[in-house]
Parts: sequence; structure tokens; C-alpha cells
Amino acid sequence: MEQANFTPIRLGMVGGGTGAFIGQVHRYAARLDRAYELIAGALSSRPDVALSSGAALGLAPDRCYTDFTEMARAEAAREDGIEAVAIVTPNHMHFAPAKAFLEAGIHVICDKPMTAHLHEAEELTRIAQSSGAKFLLTQTYSGYPLVRQARQMVAEGKLGAIRLVQVEYAQDWLARPADPDNKQAAWRSDPARSGRGGAIADIGTHAYHLARYITGLPVTQIAAQLNTFVPGRLVDDHAQATLRFEGGAMGTLWASQVAVGSENGLKIRIVGEDASLEWQQENPNQMAYARLGEARQIITRGGSDVRIPPGHPEGYLEAFATLYTDFARAIRGQSGADALLPQLPDGLEGMQFIDACLRSSDNDGAWVTMA
Amino acid sequence: MEQANFTPIRLGMVGGGTGAFIGQVHRYAARLDRAYELIAGALSSRPDVALSSGAALGLAPDRCYTDFTEMARAEAAREDGIEAVAIVTPNHMHFAPAKAFLEAGIHVICDKPMTAHLHEAEELTRIAQSSGAKFLLTQTYSGYPLVRQARQMVAEGKLGAIRLVQVEYAQDWLARPADPDNKQAAWRSDPARSGRGGAIADIGTHAYHLARYITGLPVTQIAAQLNTFVPGRLVDDHAQATLRFEGGAMGTLWASQVAVGSENGLKIRIVGEDASLEWQQENPNQMAYARLGEARQIITRGGSDVRIPPGHPEGYLEAFATLYTDFARAIRGQSGADALLPQLPDGLEGMQFIDACLRSSDNDGAWVTMA
Amino acid sequence: MEQANFTPIRLGMVGGGTGAFIGQVHRYAARLDRAYELIAGALSSRPDVALSSGAALGLAPDRCYTDFTEMARAEAAREDGIEAVAIVTPNHMHFAPAKAFLEAGIHVICDKPMTAHLHEAEELTRIAQSSGAKFLLTQTYSGYPLVRQARQMVAEGKLGAIRLVQVEYAQDWLARPADPDNKQAAWRSDPARSGRGGAIADIGTHAYHLARYITGLPVTQIAAQLNTFVPGRLVDDHAQATLRFEGGAMGTLWASQVAVGSENGLKIRIVGEDASLEWQQENPNQMAYARLGEARQIITRGGSDVRIPPGHPEGYLEAFATLYTDFARAIRGQSGADALLPQLPDGLEGMQFIDACLRSSDNDGAWVTMA
Amino acid sequence: MEQANFTPIRLGMVGGGTGAFIGQVHRYAARLDRAYELIAGALSSRPDVALSSGAALGLAPDRCYTDFTEMARAEAAREDGIEAVAIVTPNHMHFAPAKAFLEAGIHVICDKPMTAHLHEAEELTRIAQSSGAKFLLTQTYSGYPLVRQARQMVAEGKLGAIRLVQVEYAQDWLARPADPDNKQAAWRSDPARSGRGGAIADIGTHAYHLARYITGLPVTQIAAQLNTFVPGRLVDDHAQATLRFEGGAMGTLWASQVAVGSENGLKIRIVGEDASLEWQQENPNQMAYARLGEARQIITRGGSDVRIPPGHPEGYLEAFATLYTDFARAIRGQSGADALLPQLPDGLEGMQFIDACLRSSDNDGAWVTMA
Repeated sequence: MEQANFTPIRLGMVGGGTGAFIGQVHRYAARLDRAYELIAGALSSRPDVALSSGAALGLAPDRCYTDFTEMARAEAAREDGIEAVAIVTPNHMHFAPAKAFLEAGIHVICDKPMTAHLHEAEELTRIAQSSGAKFLLTQTYSGYPLVRQARQMVAEGKLGAIRLVQVEYAQDWLARPADPDNKQAAWRSDPARSGRGGAIADIGTHAYHLARYITGLPVTQIAAQLNTFVPGRLVDDHAQATLRFEGGAMGTLWASQVAVGSENGLKIRIVGEDASLEWQQENPNQMAYARLGEARQIITRGGSDVRIPPGHPEGYLEAFATLYTDFARAIRGQSGADALLPQLPDGLEGMQFIDACLRSSDNDGAWVTMA
Repeated sequence: MEQANFTPIRLGMVGGGTGAFIGQVHRYAARLDRAYELIAGALSSRPDVALSSGAALGLAPDRCYTDFTEMARAEAAREDGIEAVAIVTPNHMHFAPAKAFLEAGIHVICDKPMTAHLHEAEELTRIAQSSGAKFLLTQTYSGYPLVRQARQMVAEGKLGAIRLVQVEYAQDWLARPADPDNKQAAWRSDPARSGRGGAIADIGTHAYHLARYITGLPVTQIAAQLNTFVPGRLVDDHAQATLRFEGGAMGTLWASQVAVGSENGLKIRIVGEDASLEWQQENPNQMAYARLGEARQIITRGGSDVRIPPGHPEGYLEAFATLYTDFARAIRGQSGADALLPQLPDGLEGMQFIDACLRSSDNDGAWVTMA
Repeated sequence: MEQANFTPIRLGMVGGGTGAFIGQVHRYAARLDRAYELIAGALSSRPDVALSSGAALGLAPDRCYTDFTEMARAEAAREDGIEAVAIVTPNHMHFAPAKAFLEAGIHVICDKPMTAHLHEAEELTRIAQSSGAKFLLTQTYSGYPLVRQARQMVAEGKLGAIRLVQVEYAQDWLARPADPDNKQAAWRSDPARSGRGGAIADIGTHAYHLARYITGLPVTQIAAQLNTFVPGRLVDDHAQATLRFEGGAMGTLWASQVAVGSENGLKIRIVGEDASLEWQQENPNQMAYARLGEARQIITRGGSDVRIPPGHPEGYLEAFATLYTDFARAIRGQSGADALLPQLPDGLEGMQFIDACLRSSDNDGAWVTMA
Repeated sequence: MEQANFTPIRLGMVGGGTGAFIGQVHRYAARLDRAYELIAGALSSRPDVALSSGAALGLAPDRCYTDFTEMARAEAAREDGIEAVAIVTPNHMHFAPAKAFLEAGIHVICDKPMTAHLHEAEELTRIAQSSGAKFLLTQTYSGYPLVRQARQMVAEGKLGAIRLVQVEYAQDWLARPADPDNKQAAWRSDPARSGRGGAIADIGTHAYHLARYITGLPVTQIAAQLNTFVPGRLVDDHAQATLRFEGGAMGTLWASQVAVGSENGLKIRIVGEDASLEWQQENPNQMAYARLGEARQIITRGGSDVRIPPGHPEGYLEAFATLYTDFARAIRGQSGADALLPQLPDGLEGMQFIDACLRSSDNDGAWVTMA
């Protein structure tokens, strides 16, 4: 889905200076389909780093800011100012820039979870309602072609009424106390920067969103247990939850960053009355589909609006880019382009999910209601 | 492990007449390694069926009984009487024959769950203490070579301290209301014959035992949710539980007979501080073992006391036969032969597990203590 | 398929004394379904070993022979003499006992390859024509349920006209010079005992038979290359061949005993105009079936005349036992029981295959005609 | 490996107008890492299409050419002219533009096979020797991280001396007579545009290069059989070859476009004295590595100079982009940047491989020498 006959969106970025991980991923996603051009940034709050990081990426010096508030103001004032901004800072630095750019009428692309605290998500929701700007939450995995196909299959009734949803996200990179020099680990393990949730916020929200995205079923109650296995860690590194969905389906959610042997083991299994689906992120170009009484089928990525034919694997960057490109098409006014995108309500619900898990776990795993 | 220089155990059977499923499996297991000879049976309570079923299997007419009490009495009195009996009846018919044969001093091989009700299991435990006879509970999956190897690896510390245990047993043969002619489904769905537990008793106990068998860790608390998805069914057909293990490890257990797409999907994953293991019954000759920071290894069935070399797959019947053969060797007095066998305490604990899940589920999934 | 209402076949064995590998496997196969009773044997040519090996298996002393010729004579003369004999000696010791028992009117079960030399196979074919006795060649893999199902699917046209057949059998147990104490390796590497073929005879014949068994297509021409990678070895340890089938299908066959990383990697892929099949022995309870333009299906072992339901894996011993049991049913006169069994023509063709590969390889891989 | 502190290479393209497949892939590859900027093209020989295709991609009208000769001349003359050109036309249109741009001193990125005929490849080799320009042949699969790691492992002796190489590339998109409107199929099945080789040229060259790339072993002799299974087709759609490598290793190569059930099934297995490797393109982020006598290991994509951490899959576009980016770095003078790239000698050898296969197949599969 290389964008032809398309004027790339003028893009800015907050965070993502030299050495940052997720900022680079966002830039890949922006660039892949020729849908964006990065032209401005508040890549760092340190002036020298902001300038050198911008130069490394080919930004003009006058578009390298050290303050996102100033950037929002200045860019909104320019004729050739940015149309959208990507916020790729740690969680506690999502809210303020998102607010600033939304209020400046600039579209926002924001990493997940949406904010560090639930009340911020609620406030952002209010702010957005009075802004003409759009909001994209980068729940990456909803950009995988087979995830979207799974969602459509459920919607078309190909599984029958859903009975069970099992989702897990297993990593092992925090199985030991983190190296103090590991910036990724440092802010994620610091409640002041990531919020009170650890694994449940960082990857549990991905698992939760995936379950919600594919099934469309609202979650009514959650019973959760958060654990911290690594001594001295201030946030959970392991979480498991039981979910009750509207209509009676049951679910389990498991998120762990101490799951030795797992890299990015995001997996989902959905069982309906008539059929079931299984998909896993580490081999994302295949999905198992089993109808009751029939042989299991291995579905491969297909469809028409594709970058490359099936059999040539796509991966994580392509999924990320799909979110970006759909968002760009929506900004350019293409009807329905944002129909499959995670947006503000998804961000708010993710924060409600974290909050519910914390409340349940604080209460020894008792059932709590969502929202 | 064909038994050479070994006088086969004289075996009787209660249940298992023509058309029965699990009785035939027990006979395969008894025969495979040349460790037993079936010579008597109360294969049915209907005289004609008892006689014809016995004849079909080559039993002498005077060893075909219609009453297990009479069989226990008569066989105990014979010089050439049976040394062991296999009880392969529905759950509610385990207790009485087990009691009769234990009291007659005849070794008992009993299908799982041990009884239909917890109090029966407790009584059987008392009876067994005053009997010289041995007791084997056929938790089949503990006979798989790689399951035993997993147990040994955990015991040797190859995983480090255990943090997580996830086990599941998924089937789909009860995803629809059962055919009234399906005898297997009929008694399993009838609380009068199977006990109050449905899936949790029939396959949940297998999952529970597997977790306990490999890890050796006692379970202290359980929070369980049992569901009945198929309208009109009188027992649960889907169960999920959260487990707390002694020492702080967490666990999940999932058992379902409405899991469309699954045949006998028994899987376990155990994560320790240093390494993890994964095994699944449907491809039982491989096991994944991953040490932190190293490449995942695929371990194949090995060892010295084997029937066939690795690469030639063994299956369910061989696992079952391993339990039988070890038990025969224990009966013949071979030291240590029963060290790896599920016995009365396992049967009792299985009933306590069912009871705990029922208690928790009755109380909206609240934590209950085991035992 | 436990045999009920069935008088077990009285069985003898040539070879298979204490410590032998394949003899034990044959006994498992004979015993599993209650279709045979082992009552006599020439288990060794050394009197003490013959007697002790027989005693270990419960044979009466007067049924323990040291000479297979004497055994054939004596057993044929007894009222209660054996009805069938299993020949489980090294290749060069297949012909003479097979001849002796066939001439005595006793059914023969013979390990593969049928003989050490092609002319012996031809002579055995002639002998068998004037004997009323039946002959089973234990090409084990044709006993796997999914192999039989594959054969049926091809026969029913579910693949369309066959275009390609790829089969391989990869092992690594001879990747190094063999331990002189390894009896299995010793005779297989000795042309005097195994014949001129090494890997091509020992496992190449399995691969060849599997291709022929499933497709039913005659092979018209072969171009083969045999290699000996381990210095000092006297027979090939690696073979690859190109096959031309009647009707234009192409094939490749690969057999290696130096394929590091492989245990018993027997795999086959068959591609037709309309669909393809893939099966591998190390996970024998699944088979892939792909129709052009449709999702790949994973077929599991099914059917009605089964030992255990799908999802409970069967393995090598069960496949082996299926050959034995079908043969027993054929001996007892059950119509059609031997329809799926490898018999004398298969044994002869296996020897012709080895001969063709040797002829081609001797001629630098030139095409040679089969038979 | 997003390129920071890097001035993107000014890129042109020959072919790749609206609707073309591989041209779009090349643009993805050029763009992904921020290493190129597409600024000129002879995207079509039809003026209107050349202009509209260029406009769709944001090219200035004066950089949209209808003739590659004119483009080479004009761009070479401009101060801001292109530094490199991507040639993405059908095979018979590789030679002339490659010649034109090399002679103009412009670096060439050329799709495979290098030319339609061997003599063109030989001539191109001569031309390149007198040009200062560099040449990249896009044998895509050598850009996969694990393919490069495999190459390194072989080079480091981690497999020991190589004994066997098996490589295959299986597709099924030509299993039926092609739709006349399918442009991809049309030119690939037309000897006038693709050269005499069909599957052997289109995908066999990929398989061949992969084997050569990883092992580094020269091929000395080939015996090949090319088939045309679909009636009326003018080139081969199925090819199998036996390879002899320098030093005694044996190989098989199989390429088919009628392999029903396969999408882009490129797989390779390499067996050495000490260990073996297996990799397949459709799940490219994993590789099996088995050392003799040890458990098989599953290696995942790792390393330091990566776009995203392991567990987040990369795919085909990333592999393609890796070739492009390395080439850009080489153009910018980074030492060693082209060490892992397929270049002119690889292109020439690919043509020699096709030629050898045709010669052998024309001679009923006789051995022919390479080169």
C-alpha cells in the first residue's frame, strides 16, 4: 500500500532522539509507505541533543525544538507547519504534549499506554472532543493483516458466539534485575515515569487491546493478580487476569516480563460455538482456523491491498506502518480510512483496564467492574 | 522395557466389557510390555455380556463374574487367583470395587478421578492404610518419558526456582449437546455417575496432576470459575483456575470440553528463574527447554531403559503401559519401581482439587485453600 | 483394533535373542493387539543363549531351537506347531530361514530389505509361488494410519494426477565411524552381512516403499548417486536419487545416515495437479493437505477401526502392530485383511530398487531402468 | 539500521510504472532505512504513463523519462543527477539499461537473474570492469539476518566440513495455465522476455545463490532435469538438480512453480560433519541448528545493528532493504559495506547455473561442468 498520488503528511516528533528505540520504529512506520515526511521535532529537551538528533535525520535547524509547547505553538503558526505529531516519550510524558498538540489543532499519534494515569486519559478524552484534530494510539498489533482478518471473521460470525478468549504476552527481558544503564528498563520500572502498572501496563494493554479488537466484546468484570518476582522492582513484572465478557464469554489474560524463553510472545486464541482461531505475533503471517468437526486450516495473509504477496513475510514494522498509513489517509480525508484504527476510546479503555487490574490485585484478586 | 525374566502379573478387570473405551486401553497397557496376563473379569453386571465379553478376550468361563464383590472373594481364595485388578468403570463405580479388592488384599489399578466424591477418596485412603495391597491411579500422562524427564529436570534445579506454571487440557468433543447414544458422554455429563465436576473432574484432574507431578510444588490456594456453556448440561464443560503454589509461584489451569479445534490438547509450560519448559501431549516426543539468554532447545525422548530409540515416536498407549509395567515391577518387589507412580495420595489430592474448584466457583471465584 | 473373538496366531521367531533390537520390536507388534502368542524360537545359534533368551520370554525349553532348519521341521510336524514365524536376523540371514519356513508351509514375517542380494529375492519369489504360506514384509511405515489415508486419498483422486514425489529418510547415528561394539552398526556396515547397499538398503528402501505405497505409481527410471562420507566405511552412508515415474511424474529420494541433527526423519511430499500432501514420521498423527487456492489443512488420524481416538498419539509400535494384526487376520482367513500389506512383490521391488541405485551410481549417476 | 547522519543517495528507476510489482518492492527497500531518495525514472516507455507514474510518486516532470538511454545521459550530466539506478524491468530488459548506466558511471541496482542470456552477463561483466560504478544484484534472500548468520557460522566452522546441501524453492502460482491478463506470469513464461529458463531462472537462481552464499562452496558439476507440466507452456515450470560441490559435498536443488500448496517455500538445509542448519523463508526469524549428539537449537534473529529486537518479526521488505542500505553505505564509501552483497560475479554465476541446467536437461540429465 505504497501511497501513490498522495502528498505526504508533514510530521513532527516529540521524543525519539539519538539512541531511542520506539522513536525510530515510529519513523520507520511513517516512512515505509511514503505517507509522511518528518520535518520537525522536539527530539530532546537538551538543546545540543535536540539539534544533533535533528541534523542526523535531516531536519532543518529551525525545526529542531527543545520544548514541545513551543513546538506546538510555532508549528501551528507556520503555513508549512506539521500536520501531525508523533509522541514517543515515556508514559508520563504522553499527556502534556498530547494536550498541547490537540489544543493546537495538530493530529496526534501517541504511543501506548495512552497516559501514565487514568485521570489523564479522561482529561485527554475531554480535550479531544473540542479539538478538530484526530488521535491515533499505536496499538501496533492491530496493524497485522491477519489480526484484521480475524476481527472480520468474528464480525461475520465465522466463529459463532464467542465462548472463550485467551490472550498472553510473554517476554523475558526483565527476568533479572535490569542493568541500570538500560534506559528502556529504567523508565518502565519507575512508577514515576511509567505509572503504577509495570508489565500490566507495558504489554498487558497490548494483550487486552488485541482481545477487544478482534472480538469486539466488552469486558464487564476482571479479577487480576499482579506479581513482582524480581526483588527490589517497584512495579509488577507478571500479571494474570480472568475476564468476564458481556454475553457470558470467559477470558484469561497473562502478561509477563519474566517468562524465561519468550521474546515477544503475544498469542491469542478465540473459541466460538462453531470455530476457533489462533494467532501469534512471532509468526504473524499464519493463523489457525478450526471449524468444529473439520480439519484445522492454516490461513495465510491474503487480500488485495497488500504490499507483497503471501509467502513473503511481513513483520512488525509493516504492521506499525499500516496504522500510520491508514491514519495519513484519514487525515487526507479518505472516507473510512480510520475504521480499523485504535483511537482515543481505546486509549481510555486501556487505562481503565490497568486501573481495574490494580484495584483487583490490591483487593487480593477480587472481581472488579471495568470502567 | 519388555519384561524379560518376569512372570506376568495375574490380572482381573472390573468393567471394560465389549464396547467400552477405557477398559480396552487398560488391556493394551497391561499387555504391551509382557507384564500382565488378563485371566478374570467382572466385565459387566449382565450375565450374558459378562460371559461373552470374557470369551471374546479368552477368559475361562469360571473366571467371568457378574459381581465384583463375588469376584474379589473368589479370586482371593484361589491359589491361582488374580494378583491385581483394574477398575475401569465410570467414576461412581470406583469406590466400591476398590474397597472390595483392597480389603481382599488384591492390588488395585484405578482409573481417575479416584472416586466420584471427596469423602469416598478419604475413606479409601483409610482402607488402604490397613491393606497390604498397592494402589495405582492411572494419571496416564505421567507415564510419558518427557514428562518424567521434565520432573527430573525441575528436581535437579535446571529451571531454578519456579515462578509460573501454566497448564491446560482442551477438548471439543462436548462442544454441542451430546448424542444420547454416546455412552462416554452420557455418564460423564451425569452428576449421579461422574460426581458434581464435569470437565474439571474428567480432564482438569489430569492437568492438575501434571502440574503437581512435574513441579512437585504444593498448591495452597485456588480461585476457580466453572462454566456450563452447552444449554441443559448438568455439569461444567469449561473451567479456569488461578493457582497459588507454596513458595510464591503462580499458576493457571484451564480445562475445557467445548474448546472447538482441540482434540486432546494437554499442554504445560513451567517457567523458573533460570529456564523454562514446554510440553504438549499431542506431540509428546519433543519438549522445548529454554535457558535465559540462550537459544531454545528441542529435547527429544532419550534415556536408556526405552522400548525404541528416539525418532521413532511413542504415544499414549506406551505412556499408559509404563504406569502398568512399573506397577507390575513394584508388585514383584523391585525396589523403587513405584517411585514415579501416581498412587493414593495423588488420587485424594485430585478429589481435593475438584472440591476446591467447586467451592471457589460456588463462591463467585473467591480464593479457597486446598485440603 | 484389539482382537476380540480371535484365537491368537501361534508364533515363532528366528533371531531376536537377548539384546537384539528389532526382535523386541516385532514382539511388541505381535503382542499389542492380542493377535499372536510367541511360543517358539531359534533366538540364537548358541545353545545357551537360545535357551536363556527363550526362558526370559517364557518359552518352553523344548520350543527353544538353535537351528532354524530344525525348528521349521519340528514345528511343522507338531499339532500345536507355530503357524507363523518372524525372521528378525541381519539381512544376509533372511533368505535361508524364509526359504525353510515357506517350504514347510509356515507363514513368514520378514524384516526388510527382504534379502541381501537381488537373486535371493527372485528365488524367494519363485519358492513362495509353490508354497501355500503367506509372506509379510515389515515395511513399518505403511502401518501408520495417516500413510494409509494418504494412499487412499491419492487413489480417490484427491490430489489429481501426480506430478512430484519427494521422499527422504535422514538419520545421523552413523555420522562418525561406528563404535566397534555397536552391533546394529557393525552388521549394517558389513557388505557380507547387509549386502552391497548401506544407507540405500537400510533406510532408502523404506523411503522408496513409502513413495510407491502411497502413490501406486511404478518407477520406470532411476539416476542415483551413493556416497560414503565416513572414511573407511565399506558401504554407502548417503544416497540421493532422481526418479521417473510412469506417466511423467518426477521424484527425488534422499537417504542418509550422516545427516547430523536427524533421528528418524522420514518425510514425504506428494504434489498433484489439484492438491498436495506432506507427512513425516516423527510427528505421525498429523498430515498437511493443501488444495490449490485453498488454505492448508492439518488432517489428524481418524477413522473408525482405531485403538484410541485422535488427539491421543499413536506411534511406531502401533504402526508395526497394525501390519502384524492385519497379517494375523489374513491368516485366519478374513477377506481383504492383507490388502494394505507389503508382501513378496514389494520385497522383490525393494531389492530391484537397491540394485538399480547401485548400477546407476557405479555408472556415475546415469539413468537406469528399474527391473 | 535507520541511516542517521547520512545524505540519502539520489536514486533513479527504470521500469516500475504504475501497477508493476517488483518496482514497488525496490522503492520500499530504498525508502525503509532512509538511505535513498527517488528523484528520477524511466518508469515506462509510453510518455503518458511515464509522466503519470512519476507524478504519483512525487517526481518532478523533468525527471520523468521515456527512454533509459536519454535518462542515463541527462542524469549523468546534471549536477544533482542520480547517483544510482534501479533496473526493475523483465529479464530481457536488464542488459541494455545496465550497460547504459554503467557506462555513464552511475551505480546499478539490478533485479535477478542478471540478464536473459549468458552472453549478456559475460559482456556486462566486461563493461563493469572499465566502469567506476558499483553493481548490486538483488538476490533478496541474502539480506535476511539469519541467512547472513548462517553464512558466518559456516565460515567459522560451526558445522565442520560440509557434506550435504539441500535447497528448494516451491511456489504454486503457475500450477495452472496462467491467466493471459497476469503480467507477471506473461513475461515469465515467454522465452523472448525471460530467456530460455522458466522456474529454473526465476526462482532456481534464488535457491542456487542461497546455497552458494551460505556455504561459500563452489559447484563443480550439475545434473539437472527440467520439466514443463502445464501443457502449452514454453518454459520449464519445474526443475530438479543434483549438485557436486568442490571438496566432495553433495547437493540437491529443487525449484517448482507448480508445487501446489506452496507460496514462497524457499528452504535450505546444510549438513556438516559436526552440525546442521535449517532455515526457511516463510518463517525467517528462526533457524534450527543441531550439533551432533546435542539437542536441536532454535536460533532467533539477533545481533546489534538491527532495526527491532528479536521477537518482533522482520520480513521480506526488511531483507530487501538491507541490500539497498548496505549498497548505499558502500556508495558513500563506508569500508566493507558491500562485503555481504551479491554483485556482478554472482549475477554471472547465476546465468552460468541456468545455462548448465539447460545443457544437462537437454542431454537427458547428464552431468555437466559449471562455467
